[in-house]
Amino acid sequence: MICMIKPFKFATIPRIIFGAGKLTELYEIIPEFGNNVLFVIGGKSLKQSGTWNEIVENMNKKKYNFSQVSIREEPSASRIDKIAAEYRTKDLDVIIGIGGGSVTDAGKAISAMIPHQDSIKNYLEGVGTKRPDGNKIPYIALPTTSGTGSEATKNAVISKVGEDGFKKSLRHDNYIPNIAIIDPELILSCPPSITAACGMDAFTQLLEAYVSTNTSPMTDSFAYSGLRYMKDNIIPACTTGSNDVKVRTAMAYGSLMSGICLANAGLGIVHGLASPIGGFFEIPHGVVCGTLLAEATKLNIEKLKEKGPEGRPALKKHAEVGALIAGKESFKQGKMYKYLNILVRTLEKWTENLEIDKLGDYGISEDDFDKIIQKSGLKNNPVQLSKEDIRLILKNRL
Amino acid sequence: MICMIKPFKFATIPRIIFGAGKLTELYEIIPEFGNNVLFVIGGKSLKQSGTWNEIVENMNKKKYNFSQVSIREEPSASRIDKIAAEYRTKDLDVIIGIGGGSVTDAGKAISAMIPHQDSIKNYLEGVGTKRPDGNKIPYIALPTTSGTGSEATKNAVISKVGEDGFKKSLRHDNYIPNIAIIDPELILSCPPSITAACGMDAFTQLLEAYVSTNTSPMTDSFAYSGLRYMKDNIIPACTTGSNDVKVRTAMAYGSLMSGICLANAGLGIVHGLASPIGGFFEIPHGVVCGTLLAEATKLNIEKLKEKGPEGRPALKKHAEVGALIAGKESFKQGKMYKYLNILVRTLEKWTENLEIDKLGDYGISEDDFDKIIQKSGLKNNPVQLSKEDIRLILKNRL
Repeated sequence: MICMIKPFKFATIPRIIFGAGKLTELYEIIPEFGNNVLFVIGGKSLKQSGTWNEIVENMNKKKYNFSQVSIREEPSASRIDKIAAEYRTKDLDVIIGIGGGSVTDAGKAISAMIPHQDSIKNYLEGVGTKRPDGNKIPYIALPTTSGTGSEATKNAVISKVGEDGFKKSLRHDNYIPNIAIIDPELILSCPPSITAACGMDAFTQLLEAYVSTNTSPMTDSFAYSGLRYMKDNIIPACTTGSNDVKVRTAMAYGSLMSGICLANAGLGIVHGLASPIGGFFEIPHGVVCGTLLAEATKLNIEKLKEKGPEGRPALKKHAEVGALIAGKESFKQGKMYKYLNILVRTLEKWTENLEIDKLGDYGISEDDFDKIIQKSGLKNNPVQLSKEDIRLILKNRL
Repeated sequence: MICMIKPFKFATIPRIIFGAGKLTELYEIIPEFGNNVLFVIGGKSLKQSGTWNEIVENMNKKKYNFSQVSIREEPSASRIDKIAAEYRTKDLDVIIGIGGGSVTDAGKAISAMIPHQDSIKNYLEGVGTKRPDGNKIPYIALPTTSGTGSEATKNAVISKVGEDGFKKSLRHDNYIPNIAIIDPELILSCPPSITAACGMDAFTQLLEAYVSTNTSPMTDSFAYSGLRYMKDNIIPACTTGSNDVKVRTAMAYGSLMSGICLANAGLGIVHGLASPIGGFFEIPHGVVCGTLLAEATKLNIEKLKEKGPEGRPALKKHAEVGALIAGKESFKQGKMYKYLNILVRTLEKWTENLEIDKLGDYGISEDDFDKIIQKSGLKNNPVQLSKEDIRLILKNRL
């Protein structure tokens, strides 16, 4: 017999169009919204791969009006404000973001801020005092990395790097993209180091959502499904399988699931640390997650063991992921410790094999720990951690 | 290693608020839409249980404007037309459907037809020639049975019973309810015979979606999750556990999953027969599904076995459900036939123990088979069936 289902909420999800080559459906969908399009794209890679030329050609063929803006780094409030101000006075029916997490988030933020007159800073959690009202220009997201899952989340992360830095979210249920087109062919050209960092981010999101204190059977189903597809493909995606559509498809699916799950189940200590670390230092979000995941998971498991019977349900969730990695979709109670070890050892092996940078590689030192820890949060971490516990995670990845 | 993910589409889902006692959140949500509410409710049970009085009291306390209409049978085109015409000229911000599948569908249809001027018949699949445009009054669904999953689907079934009868859908992605509030306490008073028929309908939807030719990892995850919760609760819900919120919660969750899955993976021969049978005869939809499920599953499995290796993937899906019923979340290849037998035997046992009526109990005879079969469809059934195969299913449940 299974447990009582606790009350839960589950936000709506984007209409999803998933599969290799599905970019072409974009041109059929645009008229559902109108004729005037703003593309939010990244720096070079979309152009280098020839995809951008192909898009321009198709847009011209269909006689759609369109313009584009480029996002070359994690989006700042001033960049979003500037673009929103520029397009506020123009006719715009739909915004289309094609890129990694930064681009997807930027497009989401622009679509949300065009109907406002003031700065996005006023609406950021923990920064401003106003609450977003959910008004926006319709938004279509096409990810070119498998990482943040932003194509399915209700928040856009806005960064300011430096001593008074932050990484904070603009968040509203209505900011979930109207449509997510996930075309793994767009991800084929993603280089190994970015694939690795993004992959570790998505895996972290799936694992943290699966063991979160705020799960539901719905998030558990999707997180498990995402983990199932990602576990065997994260290493190939960064190595021998980087040109294999099958591998990229599995990673893209895992990333999509991670976005839906984090939006509904929440995250844990790794993401609770990623926010201040990313605010203080110029370090890619995926690297922070990738570098901390194994250590944080090891510590969470230790702390859960110390709690005895009370920690058992969350330990079991961890063990289920270990069993899945070991190729078993169920496990006998007696083997829980074995599967917990498999989980930790696998994450450690991935961190090493994918050559995930350490925190010190980005100028972070032990002197920075206090300010990082002070601004960190546990989010929905499955077990309470003390400041000293968190310090240990950081120290082991310096 | 797992298979390549085939391209798929997945529609948006309602914002979901799930849990015992969550009806109270309705009053907080209404202002998101406005102040003018139309309730679509059923016949007696909501009033008898005292819930309707409680709702009226709360609505008055909040000073919302509201009126209500009652739906006492499966909705007809003329009933929907009449209600839509009456409310077309009134101020209306949101429609709230509280009831079983007929009520939920009626509310969905009314919300869709108010912005039109003509009859719903013009927009029904296979009946009219116009395509719905998706405009509607916002709609909130609160199911009081665990059956159709209509709280999460994009279609409303409209019936006309008789020689020229039909059961056809009004369908548009935008007709998915904006919000589904699933409060298992509302389902506690559902009597055993309705709980049984609805439960079998939901289980059919989950099983047919899980073995459909149009699955995705997303629908598989949700269908499996729904089956997992339903399998041990369908008998208790109709017997010793009918007052147990835990049991009702599991059933409500299964029903919700079944709605999401059928909307995205499609259904099989049972639902392909339910449409003409329900059109020609006055027989509850859940009874048709419940009475045919075991026979149809047995035949599908036989036909899949005959196909050899080609039939194996779908057989394996059936066996996974058998294994789940047997309490195993995975199974060794060698045990496939054992789990197929468990699936069929369990469905047969449920049909018997729940005393699901036979087709003959509603005046259906062998003379009616031709017209039923002629109007039936295979939908996404996992294997091709001949007219004679379909006749056999009917005959065995006469």
